[in-house]
Amino acid sequence: MGGTPPLSPLAPAAFPELPEIGGVEFATAEAGVKYKNRTDVMLVRLAPGSSVAGVFTRSATRSAPVLDCQDKIGGDGDGAAAIIVNSGNSNAFTGKSGRESVSRITAATAAALGIDEARVFSSSTGVIGEPLPHDRITAKLDEMAGKLNTGGIASAAKAIMTTDTYPKGASAEVQIDGQTVKIAGIAKGSGMIAPDMATMLVYIFTDAKIERSALQAMVSANSDLTFNCITVDSDTSTSDTLLCAATGASGVEVTAQHTAFVDALHEVMLDLAHQVVRDGEGATKFVQIQVTGAQSDADAKVHAMSIANSPLIKTAIAGEDPNWGRVVMAVGKSGAAADRDLLSIWFGDVLVADKGWRAEGYQEEQGAAHMKGENIDIRVDLGLGGGTSTVWTCDLTHGYISINADYRS
Amino acid sequence: MGGTPPLSPLAPAAFPELPEIGGVEFATAEAGVKYKNRTDVMLVRLAPGSSVAGVFTRSATRSAPVLDCQDKIGGDGDGAAAIIVNSGNSNAFTGKSGRESVSRITAATAAALGIDEARVFSSSTGVIGEPLPHDRITAKLDEMAGKLNTGGIASAAKAIMTTDTYPKGASAEVQIDGQTVKIAGIAKGSGMIAPDMATMLVYIFTDAKIERSALQAMVSANSDLTFNCITVDSDTSTSDTLLCAATGASGVEVTAQHTAFVDALHEVMLDLAHQVVRDGEGATKFVQIQVTGAQSDADAKVHAMSIANSPLIKTAIAGEDPNWGRVVMAVGKSGAAADRDLLSIWFGDVLVADKGWRAEGYQEEQGAAHMKGENIDIRVDLGLGGGTSTVWTCDLTHGYISINADYRS
Repeated sequence: MGGTPPLSPLAPAAFPELPEIGGVEFATAEAGVKYKNRTDVMLVRLAPGSSVAGVFTRSATRSAPVLDCQDKIGGDGDGAAAIIVNSGNSNAFTGKSGRESVSRITAATAAALGIDEARVFSSSTGVIGEPLPHDRITAKLDEMAGKLNTGGIASAAKAIMTTDTYPKGASAEVQIDGQTVKIAGIAKGSGMIAPDMATMLVYIFTDAKIERSALQAMVSANSDLTFNCITVDSDTSTSDTLLCAATGASGVEVTAQHTAFVDALHEVMLDLAHQVVRDGEGATKFVQIQVTGAQSDADAKVHAMSIANSPLIKTAIAGEDPNWGRVVMAVGKSGAAADRDLLSIWFGDVLVADKGWRAEGYQEEQGAAHMKGENIDIRVDLGLGGGTSTVWTCDLTHGYISINADYRS
Repeated sequence: MGGTPPLSPLAPAAFPELPEIGGVEFATAEAGVKYKNRTDVMLVRLAPGSSVAGVFTRSATRSAPVLDCQDKIGGDGDGAAAIIVNSGNSNAFTGKSGRESVSRITAATAAALGIDEARVFSSSTGVIGEPLPHDRITAKLDEMAGKLNTGGIASAAKAIMTTDTYPKGASAEVQIDGQTVKIAGIAKGSGMIAPDMATMLVYIFTDAKIERSALQAMVSANSDLTFNCITVDSDTSTSDTLLCAATGASGVEVTAQHTAFVDALHEVMLDLAHQVVRDGEGATKFVQIQVTGAQSDADAKVHAMSIANSPLIKTAIAGEDPNWGRVVMAVGKSGAAADRDLLSIWFGDVLVADKGWRAEGYQEEQGAAHMKGENIDIRVDLGLGGGTSTVWTCDLTHGYISINADYRS
């Protein structure tokens, strides 16, 4: 790397206070996989009885640890479980050697913690196509096993960073039948792929007691409305992984009927997803795109993502240019149903285009004023039906080019 | 505009010598639609008996002149025909006013030339959403009608430019049964949308005698392998238009069986398509992406376009970084069939990845050497079947950001 990008101007003021989650312990280590003088491995131990659910990249070239997680995630067993994660190397496109590395790491983790290897989930994030020096990781397992503690989530959030400019965390507490259930999560990600690196990783923990298939259903449904609704650069990682563990330590049973819990989980996931966008490579603006009036929710999302991924819209936002003609273009090219003469567009509260033409009385200064803010809201109504979608992205700046073209690996 | 981008480093040394095409006359004028002190309108008169074929953007928000052309293009009639084009305003997303402007312009053109309005095709390129000051164009028609001449194609190529940094032309001659048939074409385009402007426009002329539906079939098939295989930034214009006219002035009848003619037409279209990529906003590298071994040609094109549109690959090329991991990523995300362990990748003649992992003996310096050139060749073999596709793009540089974010409209 030729340099480290500066802290994102959209970064939160500080890492949030996260509650300890009963049944979840963390440890980190400096294994020197690629980075020097920083932690690059995180180990999590989950108490016996924990349910684990997961959501993974759909990439056809997904990494060896993703494939291993997918094999294990539906499995039964209720002994203690573990999550072992390294940064600096994604172990993706590494053939048989990659599968061997995963096997070595998960076996060593199982041995160090005295648990079943089928309950050890691993992730790797970083450069693609380099053999993972798994010995450096396994050499640190006994040290980490001895350091496990319930207060280590903030350190864990740092250990999994690659080109992130800040660690990402979020939490919630929910009252269920007069008892408190906690949720805490961490994430990493800065581009779908950062320079020579890969991945968004997300780990969420709760002390609620939730049956595995119910947990999986909650996580999958919430992912579709949070992490699957963000884009930095339209490029999809080979390693995207979200793991959610419910330890049951609170003794409170939660099902899909507990909407307060499902909503709180959604809030934690949305907060983490927004933090990933706010750390988007080169980002200077946080952009929400809301599409209404589509023929279906699926159509609305196609339009929203067409807008969110348009380099011409993202550069216009970077330039604070209220260029609504480019929004018309992105709706037109998306392939989903649209009628030019029913289309309306708002920048913030300002109606800029109304049913097929520039809105009467619209002044460019009004749109320009909204574009000067840090938070940009674009709303498009298609006038066709009840389909809606909201997605989030950032602008496309010289910073993105510098991070991905100027810094050589 | 805050400034004019410098000449593309990939520009040809000079505008080519284009042959005069019997039956085709050109005139240009300074109408002041938006630009000052330059020509911005082109008029073409096509001799009676000319066949006209067209290919247009599939955008759902396509412009008023595109819709008008689509209505007329299949029509019969063999009187003289005309093409009238302005730059500076795309007449897109302009509602009823836009349709009115097209009607005024085509009616006035028909009157000035004494031809049927159903044989007058118009295009507009430039800013979206502004009313087109059609009176400035119609006011110039009599002047242009008096200046029509067969030698004006180079001037026409300049009049249709928006943010293009050079005019684009190409030609071919074909021997058919001992007689010579000529083809000459011009194009404009620099991004799928240039700053606040829209459009790729292409006009091709031949003195061959070709029945209209045969001409349409040739043009459509060739478009799929030329203009539909280029991308600068994945953003699709609301105004893309290709018109091809066959005047018959050579007296030589040509059909689809004359493969030498079809091939020559393909070469002219490919040359113009490459010239558009070479004038891509901010481009410093011309990139060919060839995918082989896909399950189908359609799958191969999905993979090729996923690679060609990936901002991470385009920035890596800008940075002369042989980052083949990003090619793996783009294949993985495309959605078309791929098997990681059968995938091979070449940069130029250098095998960088072989059946699922970094090629044995590959040295980063080999890939880096290829990346230093102006012409970058990326080949991917999927090892699945016989499907192939070749597409062309350019790199993504600070220049693209500057043109689209820093220059305010």
